[in-house]
Amino acid sequence: MEESPLYVPIHPSEDAEEKEDIICISPDASPAEKVKQAVACLPSVAVKSADFPKSAFHRWTIMDYSHAYNSSEITPLMVAEQFIAAVRHSSSPSFQMSFFINSNFEDILRQATESTLRYKQGKQISVLDGVPIAVKDEIDCLPYPTTGGTKWLHKVRSCKEDACCVRHLRQCGAIIVGKTNMHELGAGTSGINPHYGATRNPYDKNKVAGGSSSGSAAAVSSGLCPAALGVDGGVNLFWAGSVRMPAALCGVVGFKPTFRRVPHSGVIPLNWTVGMVGVLAGTVEDALIVYAAISGQPPSAQPAVEAPRVCLPRLADVVSNIKMAKYGEWFNDCSDEIRNCCSNALTQFRKRYGWETVEVTIPEIEVMRLAHYLTIGSECSSSISSYLKKVDRGESGWDVRVALSVYGAFNSKEYLNAQRIRNRQMQFHKKIFAKADVIVCPTTGVTAYSVMNDALKTGELDYVNGAALVRYQIAGNFLGLPAITVPVGYDKEGLPIGLQFIGKPWSEPLLIQIASAVQALCMAEYKKPQVFYDLLSKKEVPHNSI
Amino acid sequence: MEESPLYVPIHPSEDAEEKEDIICISPDASPAEKVKQAVACLPSVAVKSADFPKSAFHRWTIMDYSHAYNSSEITPLMVAEQFIAAVRHSSSPSFQMSFFINSNFEDILRQATESTLRYKQGKQISVLDGVPIAVKDEIDCLPYPTTGGTKWLHKVRSCKEDACCVRHLRQCGAIIVGKTNMHELGAGTSGINPHYGATRNPYDKNKVAGGSSSGSAAAVSSGLCPAALGVDGGVNLFWAGSVRMPAALCGVVGFKPTFRRVPHSGVIPLNWTVGMVGVLAGTVEDALIVYAAISGQPPSAQPAVEAPRVCLPRLADVVSNIKMAKYGEWFNDCSDEIRNCCSNALTQFRKRYGWETVEVTIPEIEVMRLAHYLTIGSECSSSISSYLKKVDRGESGWDVRVALSVYGAFNSKEYLNAQRIRNRQMQFHKKIFAKADVIVCPTTGVTAYSVMNDALKTGELDYVNGAALVRYQIAGNFLGLPAITVPVGYDKEGLPIGLQFIGKPWSEPLLIQIASAVQALCMAEYKKPQVFYDLLSKKEVPHNSI
Repeated sequence: MEESPLYVPIHPSEDAEEKEDIICISPDASPAEKVKQAVACLPSVAVKSADFPKSAFHRWTIMDYSHAYNSSEITPLMVAEQFIAAVRHSSSPSFQMSFFINSNFEDILRQATESTLRYKQGKQISVLDGVPIAVKDEIDCLPYPTTGGTKWLHKVRSCKEDACCVRHLRQCGAIIVGKTNMHELGAGTSGINPHYGATRNPYDKNKVAGGSSSGSAAAVSSGLCPAALGVDGGVNLFWAGSVRMPAALCGVVGFKPTFRRVPHSGVIPLNWTVGMVGVLAGTVEDALIVYAAISGQPPSAQPAVEAPRVCLPRLADVVSNIKMAKYGEWFNDCSDEIRNCCSNALTQFRKRYGWETVEVTIPEIEVMRLAHYLTIGSECSSSISSYLKKVDRGESGWDVRVALSVYGAFNSKEYLNAQRIRNRQMQFHKKIFAKADVIVCPTTGVTAYSVMNDALKTGELDYVNGAALVRYQIAGNFLGLPAITVPVGYDKEGLPIGLQFIGKPWSEPLLIQIASAVQALCMAEYKKPQVFYDLLSKKEVPHNSI
Repeated sequence: MEESPLYVPIHPSEDAEEKEDIICISPDASPAEKVKQAVACLPSVAVKSADFPKSAFHRWTIMDYSHAYNSSEITPLMVAEQFIAAVRHSSSPSFQMSFFINSNFEDILRQATESTLRYKQGKQISVLDGVPIAVKDEIDCLPYPTTGGTKWLHKVRSCKEDACCVRHLRQCGAIIVGKTNMHELGAGTSGINPHYGATRNPYDKNKVAGGSSSGSAAAVSSGLCPAALGVDGGVNLFWAGSVRMPAALCGVVGFKPTFRRVPHSGVIPLNWTVGMVGVLAGTVEDALIVYAAISGQPPSAQPAVEAPRVCLPRLADVVSNIKMAKYGEWFNDCSDEIRNCCSNALTQFRKRYGWETVEVTIPEIEVMRLAHYLTIGSECSSSISSYLKKVDRGESGWDVRVALSVYGAFNSKEYLNAQRIRNRQMQFHKKIFAKADVIVCPTTGVTAYSVMNDALKTGELDYVNGAALVRYQIAGNFLGLPAITVPVGYDKEGLPIGLQFIGKPWSEPLLIQIASAVQALCMAEYKKPQVFYDLLSKKEVPHNSI
């Protein structure tokens, strides 16, 4: 191979373009200022659920919460109480949804009381003030330990302060409602955790939620919060796409920004060149607001490379002239229902928006998958080895034990060759992005599959379904490309199907515009999950809301 | 370790400071323009050897060649003929100096004829026009194959065009006089090559020249050219300092710029994060001129990080207010003669220039050495494996075989931990450079040792002397720091001793100023080598010049 190794997928910031329909702000602006700019980008219609098609199911949006609080109909404290009742209900023996690893009700009520007071005094900080947001349990967030889904990581690595992204949400007034469940160390895709329970899919509680950000996806899906933080390919012993994939399985939006777009401090740095904090949200607009809040300037890149300005798209305009690169193979190796649903969506885009499809080939995908696997394995092994010395491997599930055993075995030459492959794939993708604005593909190869009883005890070892779930996720992580998944339909069992758009570096604004247009086209068909909580209702949840 | 890995020692370019006594030029300026600026930096005295102390030995400088050509006393063609006679003489059975792996006399005469014509027409390009310069045989240079000191590399990797640094020298009119001998693949420090002969030390032909840039150092030392190109830590299976170390052993100046300061295209990229083209020259001023010619903008950094402007020091002024960091241990673990010679030099600097010495500790040096070894091993293994598939290992010397066997065995986790150590050491060194301008230390722990007869056949396996030779070289390569060695004395056998200055990133101008001042102080004591050729003499070499 002639390519030199690309160790870290740092993209030059000059790729960020300012256009008429895009506003750019300094990465150093305050989170509340960024949120204000994001709200200014929302279309004047369709920001509140009242503007959505009447017939369709919809989750309450951040703007719904903001309007309710501003009108004093509902207070953050009322929502916090509804939230606590809902979490209790979802944890009851007949549900066992296992959304959270930790949720401190006292801490939630304290935050809600403070927010309620701010609204009373007319001193609300932003539209996120009083809005419940959940955080994946691999992101540091006080007063909680950071377990990474394990029974031991928090014993050898203490959480001393909020991660940067959590701090930014707090600076906007958001209520952090707890640490969501996840696949143990991201060692699988199902979200089945032998220590904290299997996160169940709100659309069918006998199905998996996907992982590793399983709890964040399921919590948003079931209405517990309009948005949650996940980490895509972060603490991830085996897989990729750990925001996008569970989002697709749970019928919500999953958004992974460009590598380095969100400061990573306070996130367990297990796979530091492939992971990125991502957003799970009920709508594309809510993903935009939270994305604006947490985006910024990473503190210390090596070498020092300036992060570009944070660019946000104005969503009022029609999105046209989009060229979508389609790799035919990726529409063949998924289930029939997913293929049909996604292909129909592309047809609709063409009819309604005139979006073109460009057939492309993405070469050496299997090689890239192996190089990615070798990279996350090596990085994880280097990060975690000091911790592992202090703990008993028997405390981990079987899936984690398998992964950790494999990971010690990689050679440094192979690692460097994997980084050469990373460079080569970056060149391949550059060529594709010269022909098209985005790559479009199904988010997953299968919809949510059944929770098997044996996996509940030992951890998940279903590598066949696992592979089908992450098949289309690798480039987003390995090359640091931004990507977003939007629900576009359901299979015949009523399980959600997601469509994914992968963009070139720093193309978040375009991805959000496209996703918003896709959502507008599909939302009339959106279905309500089996398990759903209406926190903005004045009636007590859960009794009348499921 | 909390440190994240530093994969490539890329230093931010804002470190380069423009001062009164430093001129900065664009890295995109033409090589001839850069050379012109360098000449403008030379002191008005002491540029020609006529200005040196009469009693002292001195080699002809680039300015000597330029003045001789301009005065028409001597032509480039005459020098070329002298050069050819000298090479023939040095290769004769009673000498076997083995300076070159390849030297094409026809090609040299062609270049010399062209240069002579330019002078006749008054169209000389720069002071380098017609000046003989030799190139280490790991740098691509037509019409030669690039052997890397092996019998096989050129068979599996063809040389298609000049390396960037060679092209720049040609653009200044320099005559490229051949490819110098080197330790096979840099797998050792002695310069003993079982295929092309042991490069012998001009100060004592029974002693080694050091390596891996052995031929370049010895050719300059013996007067065959005022300057030569080497690669410091480049193709280097085992060691570091492969410009500085042979320079010290052969009594010449060795200069290794900051990582990325010289475009690396066309240099065998075996250890791409530790190697850097360097200059071997008879005087500090000549090193400055050649450095200016070859410095520039590396074509494609990943990520794109701008290279700083090329900064050159004005050498007219006195250098004062220098703080030298001295690590006491490094003045203890060398031979007594080297310790005494180097310590005396520091005392002289204090007396004559008022330079201060600051005692410092460089922590974890042994850890750094292992991390460096693991890094070059892994990089080399990744680079070379595709070539090795095509060749028989039996074609390599024992030293190369040992190294290649060890290198396949490193683990990817260890590799990543080595990069964390690199980051940590960078922090250690930053703290030292906050207290001092440069680090000062002996260049080598021993002077040139004897060529053993068995090594001539099999390759060198003397790891004890090897370790003593490279002990003080690691940081320059592993951290990408600039460094320069200047002759400061001789042991009782008359073998040269070098003193090394290691600077912070992009501090080349200061290093050159310091080295120039050191040279001014020591040059009265400079000794003539046993094997020396006077190419500017009108009498035929070698008869009267050895």
